Amino acid sequence: MPQSPETPLRLGIVGIGKIARDQHLPSIAASPDFTLVAAASRHATVDGCANFPTIEAMLADGPTIDAVSICTPPHGRDRMVRAALAAGKHVMIEKPPGATVAEIAPLRHHAEAAGLTLFASWHSREAAGVDAARAWLADRTIRRAAITWREDIRVWHPGQDWILEAGGFGVFDPGINALSIATAILPLDLCVDGGTIAVPENRASPIAARIAMRLPGGAPVSLDLDFLQTGQQSWNIEVETDAGTLVLTEGGKRLFVDGAEQATGPDAGEYPRLYRRFATLIRGGRSDVDLRPLQLVADAFLVSRQERVAPFDF
Amino acid sequence: MPQSPETPLRLGIVGIGKIARDQHLPSIAASPDFTLVAAASRHATVDGCANFPTIEAMLADGPTIDAVSICTPPHGRDRMVRAALAAGKHVMIEKPPGATVAEIAPLRHHAEAAGLTLFASWHSREAAGVDAARAWLADRTIRRAAITWREDIRVWHPGQDWILEAGGFGVFDPGINALSIATAILPLDLCVDGGTIAVPENRASPIAARIAMRLPGGAPVSLDLDFLQTGQQSWNIEVETDAGTLVLTEGGKRLFVDGAEQATGPDAGEYPRLYRRFATLIRGGRSDVDLRPLQLVADAFLVSRQERVAPFDF
Repeated sequence: MPQSPETPLRLGIVGIGKIARDQHLPSIAASPDFTLVAAASRHATVDGCANFPTIEAMLADGPTIDAVSICTPPHGRDRMVRAALAAGKHVMIEKPPGATVAEIAPLRHHAEAAGLTLFASWHSREAAGVDAARAWLADRTIRRAAITWREDIRVWHPGQDWILEAGGFGVFDPGINALSIATAILPLDLCVDGGTIAVPENRASPIAARIAMRLPGGAPVSLDLDFLQTGQQSWNIEVETDAGTLVLTEGGKRLFVDGAEQATGPDAGEYPRLYRRFATLIRGGRSDVDLRPLQLVADAFLVSRQERVAPFDF
Repeated sequence: MPQSPETPLRLGIVGIGKIARDQHLPSIAASPDFTLVAAASRHATVDGCANFPTIEAMLADGPTIDAVSICTPPHGRDRMVRAALAAGKHVMIEKPPGATVAEIAPLRHHAEAAGLTLFASWHSREAAGVDAARAWLADRTIRRAAITWREDIRVWHPGQDWILEAGGFGVFDPGINALSIATAILPLDLCVDGGTIAVPENRASPIAARIAMRLPGGAPVSLDLDFLQTGQQSWNIEVETDAGTLVLTEGGKRLFVDGAEQATGPDAGEYPRLYRRFATLIRGGRSDVDLRPLQLVADAFLVSRQERVAPFDF
């Protein structure tokens, strides 16, 4: 990858958990746009940079930074974003952008008023097939769509009890990835009609959900989420149009039209593309805060029936 | 009330249920701004105007109208708003503005693009004490607030089973009135932290809720909703500030500061004020679509724990 023509931006990272170690740290290390100079985490440290227990300590006592990347679970995210913006830092946030829509929505205006970038990132939108799917669907008439996102919580979120606590989104934590792709590729705005959400008796958040959505005009879009899928995992979006059926598989990586695989852009990796996009936003003086995926999740909880199902333990 | 200097606007009303008969029809009859010329309802008719079974039939076959007032339950509201806007009519909608946030949010842009008014009405904001409360709180520092909205569903919503179906909002149907006042009088944006929602075993929507909210900076705002309050009903908002404690009672009608009742504007009635505001918006070429109260309800469902409680029957 060619070096950026500009000086790398000095970055502080907040929240050193599984997603930070698996994705953010390797992507930052390989990025020509950023240099990691500080990290904030209650329990963990990162080798080779200054470490702090909290974002407030990092901002007050740390080395000079230009930008902050926040990878903590969603609860309390808005306080961190406010602190970083108040300190004059550009901010990128891991998905979901916050615990609720109302706590995040006003922050875009804070960033814009301060001349700073706020980037609510959706890593699945950076999967290799997404741009090509959006382009193919742009002038098609959608007849129906089906989103199937079934994965094994024990494989992908081992021991992450917080995801099944109230406010942890449950199976909508991966499901919001599907919604981030759907809202990016469908040419019209999705909304939720109703559905069923299954919550284990010993938990507060859903382990499965079947949600009925639609596009303006009424084309139905189904959302089928399951956290107990063993064996073959399913991360598929199928869209039936007036000109054939598009299928995105493997979480947006591969694209098919009427069964024939389509060319996509190079697979640069979701998180490397996110950091490239964050740098581009900063250098262009822009923000990108699309809360529609989170809105659809909140709306799904609002209008769905909750059912109690068998207890779940890791 | 003085006659409007302009020709009354020709109005069609949609959804002839309890709220239309109790509030809308008398307010329209007394309004200098509107003349009722058509009504659409599946089962009911209104004397003295043309009647149709659906909004589509009213728009296609009815007398010429300038504006539509939609009083149906929230499910399906967005389709009606789209139909009315597509026919070139200004639109006022009863609260809540829709079944979900995502289905209503794009409609503001439809209205603006067509040069039409969309008014998402919140009748409780027209209560006599609300404007004075907003003015008093504008430059105060809020320390904490408590919203208590406890009423008897059997008195105020007799036999309205839909309110306890999935998507019917349950106790948040009156609770959203409290949130419409709170978002209007508090000088900063509310958000939801968590809570408990109580759903009867034989229903899908809550009969009670205890929600923890906060303002930026952390000032706590509690929301206490109950649909089973007999005897004295409670529709109160208490706000503790650096300059004393403000209390709005009787759903926003009476205002007290440190126990002393305050002067309010004349009590012109909530719905007469709504229709006056709708006419002002139309004549000014503006829309008013504030979805924050609905957003807070969706966020409350998203982050709260649902508990099953005793069955409820009317």
